[in-house]
Amino acid sequence: MARKASLSGFPEWLPNERLVELHVQDTLRRTFELHGFSNIETRAVETVGQLLRKGEIDKEVYGLSRLQAEEGEAAGTDPNALALHFDLTVPFARYVVENAGHLAFPFRRYQIQKVWRGERPQDGRFREFTQADIDVVGDGALPFRYDVELALVIADALGSLPIGEFTVRVNNRKLAEGFYRGLGLEDTAAVLRSVDKLEKIGPDKVAELLISETGATEDQARAALALASIRTADTSFAEQVRALGVQHELLDEGLAELTEVIEAASRRAPGTVVADLSIARGLDYYTGTVYETVLVGHEKLGSICSGGRYESLASKGNRVFPGVGLSIGVSRLVSRLLADGGLQASRDVPTAVLVALNDDDSWYQAQDVATALRARGIAVEVAAKAEKFGKQIRYADRRGIPFVWFTTAEGTHEVKDIRSGDQVAADPQSWTPPAEDLQPGITTS
Amino acid sequence: MARKASLSGFPEWLPNERLVELHVQDTLRRTFELHGFSNIETRAVETVGQLLRKGEIDKEVYGLSRLQAEEGEAAGTDPNALALHFDLTVPFARYVVENAGHLAFPFRRYQIQKVWRGERPQDGRFREFTQADIDVVGDGALPFRYDVELALVIADALGSLPIGEFTVRVNNRKLAEGFYRGLGLEDTAAVLRSVDKLEKIGPDKVAELLISETGATEDQARAALALASIRTADTSFAEQVRALGVQHELLDEGLAELTEVIEAASRRAPGTVVADLSIARGLDYYTGTVYETVLVGHEKLGSICSGGRYESLASKGNRVFPGVGLSIGVSRLVSRLLADGGLQASRDVPTAVLVALNDDDSWYQAQDVATALRARGIAVEVAAKAEKFGKQIRYADRRGIPFVWFTTAEGTHEVKDIRSGDQVAADPQSWTPPAEDLQPGITTS
Repeated sequence: MARKASLSGFPEWLPNERLVELHVQDTLRRTFELHGFSNIETRAVETVGQLLRKGEIDKEVYGLSRLQAEEGEAAGTDPNALALHFDLTVPFARYVVENAGHLAFPFRRYQIQKVWRGERPQDGRFREFTQADIDVVGDGALPFRYDVELALVIADALGSLPIGEFTVRVNNRKLAEGFYRGLGLEDTAAVLRSVDKLEKIGPDKVAELLISETGATEDQARAALALASIRTADTSFAEQVRALGVQHELLDEGLAELTEVIEAASRRAPGTVVADLSIARGLDYYTGTVYETVLVGHEKLGSICSGGRYESLASKGNRVFPGVGLSIGVSRLVSRLLADGGLQASRDVPTAVLVALNDDDSWYQAQDVATALRARGIAVEVAAKAEKFGKQIRYADRRGIPFVWFTTAEGTHEVKDIRSGDQVAADPQSWTPPAEDLQPGITTS
Repeated sequence: MARKASLSGFPEWLPNERLVELHVQDTLRRTFELHGFSNIETRAVETVGQLLRKGEIDKEVYGLSRLQAEEGEAAGTDPNALALHFDLTVPFARYVVENAGHLAFPFRRYQIQKVWRGERPQDGRFREFTQADIDVVGDGALPFRYDVELALVIADALGSLPIGEFTVRVNNRKLAEGFYRGLGLEDTAAVLRSVDKLEKIGPDKVAELLISETGATEDQARAALALASIRTADTSFAEQVRALGVQHELLDEGLAELTEVIEAASRRAPGTVVADLSIARGLDYYTGTVYETVLVGHEKLGSICSGGRYESLASKGNRVFPGVGLSIGVSRLVSRLLADGGLQASRDVPTAVLVALNDDDSWYQAQDVATALRARGIAVEVAAKAEKFGKQIRYADRRGIPFVWFTTAEGTHEVKDIRSGDQVAADPQSWTPPAEDLQPGITTS
């Protein structure tokens, strides 16, 4: 991590760092599959028209054009031109619509892929990074219970990672919107946008914004801020909201939904999932539950996993596909684990055993040993040259390979743990390394 | 596969098809790691200057530009502009040079990533596809033995895949070049280019080309074609070459190298690796061993795995990095396995068990059952609604989930195999499905 990316915003990992990233990805994959999510991949490319459908983000999109394009080929902001996707939600929505006839709904999918943002180079932000998304999408309707389930899935997934303590903060758009309406504030989107800035600019500035931007009175602004200040690890947030004395049907609905999420989560993942009524999430398409996640002690890093419920991820004629989903910023997380967390792999290579050579002709015999060991899942390299044993051992040491295998001219075998120096007789058909040496482990340096 | 890609050249798989692709990728990853190869990923993006260094391929490159680029930003064929990589070799060469100080040489790496080619849309070729590459790269020198080893690794890797019979065809550039020089043909690159067309245009046309393009006499052309006609599954090719009566030092060297590869391979993977003296491989940077691989019965598909030895993958001042590597066209292979091979996953979802609900309140209890099963690696979904059991079973059936779990009001458990209808008492703490049902398997339909 001392190394600088050779192209700003496009980080690349060394083999040891990549093992940490693979561990994170493999763990997420395993957890998602244990919860019944199917994997898909979508193409890296969408049409510009598809990507800009929601507007506002065209600055962040990388357009594509063939270097030797012919006259008349679509390019730039032409809706038919091609561009790299900037998230996995837009491609997933298109995939659902295109393949609706082949999918069983509710469709549960996870997707771990790179996305690209055409940020200005000098901003020092990632321009290529990996996201891990899970969504459940219904055909026409999707029971609210999936909002509860996703909070549990994500608590399980993040809890399986070596990332320390984290908090999933949950809010509900209906709750906030109903509260604002009950207060008499009708431009709820503008109120949400102002409240969303709470962490950045503080309550006084937000109050000013509410008054100047949304036409709120001081009392209304104070009430909106009071709502946003409520955070509880149990369902007591509901009483605190009630105590503010606002009445609205949508507020009731939101309170009931958020109570259900927090109640389930406090049973199954106590302390991990909290109600935080300041969470707004910028994206317009969320319509109910919204989630954010922070690493305890690294709150400044921002949310490492966010999402929510949307009543219409996509539509096809009269058919609407509602969903609920979450997205983990894998690259941002891994980058932090490597830099601050000091996470690393216990060795740089998968190899557990180097088979040493007595002489150059013993290479074939050494391949037999390697094949026997590999058949039991042990990663093996065979030395390429019959150098002095000391040199072959140093080769293993330099690569972090823990064991060196020797075969005598008489055909007997010994294996040496080059860390301890212990050397013992061994049979290629039965020897295995200790479980912790079979594969590189992830440790804190 | 009846479905057409919504964007020509950018295929996307359904969840079941993706399971086949994942199986291929996971199997390759496992085999490469068992042979001691480390994984890396390089960024999708290189500078245009880096990509076009070898010339000739600019038509196939997708350039990138921010949709709202500011004046003066590099674009198009400007060497500083960004573009998508078209293979994994160019990025790997750059990675080796940039990180040479952090890598242990010989550096063994595998890389499974997407690449892009800006083909004309109407060509019906893949414009996005996945490649799986392995290379061993030395610092200054790399023993020839790695050429032998890579043939064995690739035979092992491809042999682990459900692709049927395949043949790795090996040749050696030194052998061919030495032979042509011994014949008196000095423009060996031009001779190779002509011979490379053998499969496409036949021997008569190649003879014409050799005479018109390289100034060969009829005898020389006939001898070059005689060399290219030699194919043996053992080392007898050497005698056949000798019988042609050509002498050259480089020819001797090439014969010795190819003999070593074929000898080792015929011991360890009999019949799989053959000497084929017609193999030329277009790329100029190969300097010794060259490999191609065809699926038996699908020769028209072309090579699914190709590579070779290069004396200089990259250089850094006086420092040269020779290597030997192979690249598998994963997308092309998977596409063929799905279409002609009829390969499919035994179910569409990872889920082995659906936990049914008696009533809506039993959802929490059902989560306990699910958690107990997941702890033993069993993928589980919990029903979202307490519909009639018949409806919950149909839900499982529609998704291909083989088992449905029932918990009575008294807290006893039963599990039903919905394929056979068998229903038995089961304990969440100990029940496991038969091994073949634990995860989706890959089968031929």
